[in-house]
Amino acid sequence: MDTDHINSLSHKRTSEEIYNQACKIIPGGVSRNTIFHHPYPHYISHANGCYATDINNIQRLDFGNNMAALIHGHAHPDIVDAVIKQIRKGTAYTMATEAEVLYAQLLCDRTPSFEKIRFVNSGTEAVMAMIKTARAYTGRPKIAKAEGAYHGTYDFAEVSQTANPANWGDINQPNSVPVANGTPQSVLNDVIIFPYNDIEHTLAILDQNASEIACVIIDPVPHRVGLMEGKTNFIEAIYEWTRKNGALLAFDEVVTYRVNYGGAQQNYSVKPDLTALGKIIGGGFPVGAFAGRSDIMKVLDPRESKLLFPHSGTFSANPVSMTAGHTTMKMYNKDAILKLNTLTQKATDQIREAIKIADVPVSITGTGSMFRLHLKPSAPTSYREAYQNCETKTLINEMLDYLFLDEKIMMINTLTCMFSTVMTQKEIDMLSQALLNMFKRFKTQLHSLDK
Amino acid sequence: MDTDHINSLSHKRTSEEIYNQACKIIPGGVSRNTIFHHPYPHYISHANGCYATDINNIQRLDFGNNMAALIHGHAHPDIVDAVIKQIRKGTAYTMATEAEVLYAQLLCDRTPSFEKIRFVNSGTEAVMAMIKTARAYTGRPKIAKAEGAYHGTYDFAEVSQTANPANWGDINQPNSVPVANGTPQSVLNDVIIFPYNDIEHTLAILDQNASEIACVIIDPVPHRVGLMEGKTNFIEAIYEWTRKNGALLAFDEVVTYRVNYGGAQQNYSVKPDLTALGKIIGGGFPVGAFAGRSDIMKVLDPRESKLLFPHSGTFSANPVSMTAGHTTMKMYNKDAILKLNTLTQKATDQIREAIKIADVPVSITGTGSMFRLHLKPSAPTSYREAYQNCETKTLINEMLDYLFLDEKIMMINTLTCMFSTVMTQKEIDMLSQALLNMFKRFKTQLHSLDK
Repeated sequence: MDTDHINSLSHKRTSEEIYNQACKIIPGGVSRNTIFHHPYPHYISHANGCYATDINNIQRLDFGNNMAALIHGHAHPDIVDAVIKQIRKGTAYTMATEAEVLYAQLLCDRTPSFEKIRFVNSGTEAVMAMIKTARAYTGRPKIAKAEGAYHGTYDFAEVSQTANPANWGDINQPNSVPVANGTPQSVLNDVIIFPYNDIEHTLAILDQNASEIACVIIDPVPHRVGLMEGKTNFIEAIYEWTRKNGALLAFDEVVTYRVNYGGAQQNYSVKPDLTALGKIIGGGFPVGAFAGRSDIMKVLDPRESKLLFPHSGTFSANPVSMTAGHTTMKMYNKDAILKLNTLTQKATDQIREAIKIADVPVSITGTGSMFRLHLKPSAPTSYREAYQNCETKTLINEMLDYLFLDEKIMMINTLTCMFSTVMTQKEIDMLSQALLNMFKRFKTQLHSLDK
Repeated sequence: MDTDHINSLSHKRTSEEIYNQACKIIPGGVSRNTIFHHPYPHYISHANGCYATDINNIQRLDFGNNMAALIHGHAHPDIVDAVIKQIRKGTAYTMATEAEVLYAQLLCDRTPSFEKIRFVNSGTEAVMAMIKTARAYTGRPKIAKAEGAYHGTYDFAEVSQTANPANWGDINQPNSVPVANGTPQSVLNDVIIFPYNDIEHTLAILDQNASEIACVIIDPVPHRVGLMEGKTNFIEAIYEWTRKNGALLAFDEVVTYRVNYGGAQQNYSVKPDLTALGKIIGGGFPVGAFAGRSDIMKVLDPRESKLLFPHSGTFSANPVSMTAGHTTMKMYNKDAILKLNTLTQKATDQIREAIKIADVPVSITGTGSMFRLHLKPSAPTSYREAYQNCETKTLINEMLDYLFLDEKIMMINTLTCMFSTVMTQKEIDMLSQALLNMFKRFKTQLHSLDK
């Protein structure tokens, strides 16, 4: 099949036809379950700024931004130009590049807790390497994480991410629930689960495993838990606990680094020992990173007589991801962040107004340039409160379909929006009008859900 | 710091100066230990075809090809053109692309065992997902792998990769040796280690854990074991053992897929149930994939009423890696493979001649477009035979330095060469002449090592 034939195919086939082929060679026909859609996903042709155009030439306003990975929207000309320049010089070498050093410097200059940094290829790899770093430094086997929090697909990190009422157990002692069938029991034993933002229960649970915990992992605004901010006293209490018990505080800022100039951690008085990064810092290209205290990150230093954590990766710190990321984050400066967060605040104000006008039991969580809708009158304060039962999930899917097909708006499948800097008041107005229409249309179902 | 300043810097600073900055913000100053070099690594400016040029404008012949990831060398114009076209249309979306489907089809059409495939972002992610797939399908916790074999940085997959005489134990029962400090004991317990190509010991070891093994992982030409081919009767014996004991045969072809049109597995009569891919299939961009039997890969299908292995990834199957990979593998057709493997055979013939002329105790292993030099008169047949003691490692580093600085030739740090299709007889002659010079220069040390 030559290139011309491939190109001509892409203009002739429908999404359904492409998906039928996909199902024969890809499990479920999708490479990522997050983009799965019944009866078939729609295939994209191209995207620019905050608009994505499918193969039927239908343009949609994109609040997904590749699952929060694109802070300047699609195909930003400055990023495209910088990357093309690099690609003509090669994309990956068995040698070091200055690009990784300059970008490492930029990130370390932004965030005080980043004394040293290493790049990897994804958020999953970043969290895995961060956990291995914590284990190598402390010599301890266990980690603690919040019920419902998504930290990538490393099996230790994903325990209890999809816990449900049938298996999550008592809140005093949440079960370690596997995500994947066949997860070794030993993995479950090495992961301690606590309820997010619940100081009393969390400290009691941590105390039971005090001498074995290498690190406590915290996403400061955990999307899958409910996109609520970590309370200041919760974060501080965990920080104090780790100081007293020889454990590390590890932040997962893969999604939340967008929240402030130095990441969401800038909003707290305490600093994490280690941080995992990903998403926006790749400028649209595959990336991950983990950063933290020099004395801890030393476990990775090949010059040490005993190298505690040998670590490499074929594509790690490749100059394409480094160049795209550097260009992206240079543009994402304090002014840009303030402007974006203000715009998002404006949007949620308008959406709260729409909720009031439509008189529907809907609430909003989020911070910075992110928000999530919940189909309940009061914003949830925990994973268990935010948990969607089958009926709620069905309604959410209907609402997402309505937005996608009728209103030409893309959101993340939890009813979450991730804003980009190329959005303006125009797009905010389109979003709040679309949501108002949606609330009115689904008003009866929304109220019956609330009963 | 603006872009112009960054660009001007890159022409003004020496490698030592860049490295000094790197050491302040990156552990060991390098993002990947494989490119670490004492007292500092040399930084690259650009690369084209089989030549890489450093920031001092010194051009070197590159047999590293980014740790075997570049089958057509650097910045191949067809790949560059195709990728640039895609980048202008966006690099990643919260929607499906036809690019992933067309590329999945191409790979499934090449290799009979690839009934279904999923893409991820690195070889590490591919092996991790493959292991999780095997566990999800069998419901069993353990894996078995060869001593010394590198399968990425997932902690289960890396056990015993760096085992040494002080800790590897009896060959009848090799120890599970952690690579990273703090690896949970439970991880070590869940990994069974066997000696590569040793049927008798391997089957005895597998038998002891027969009911608990989800999969046996085999790299058909394991670089870090010694780059020797898996013997036909060894592969067949493991295959038969897995049939009898309800386990899966999982190939790691991240490096070896280059060996034949359908991967190195094409050279055997038995088919693996699952295969992990990476390196060349990304066309120079971050990629991984895992493929195998439909009934097994079904654990990933989100349409199933009980989804056994939920799996996603922000950058998985991104259209840039898909386009680069597709363009690359279309060019890497049967003719290209035959030509490349023949050229590599010619090179090893010439190098064997150089070894004879220089009269040094050096041997060669490898197959297809890869070879590795060993500083011993007979080619090693096992990891323990190929193991390099401190004295050998020191001499290898001196030889690599000589090649890099005096002969302007880059090799992988095990004295391994990975050929690319843009190489010709000219480059083969340069390589064999350089190695002849090296053998003569280090003749005394080589002979004293052999005593």
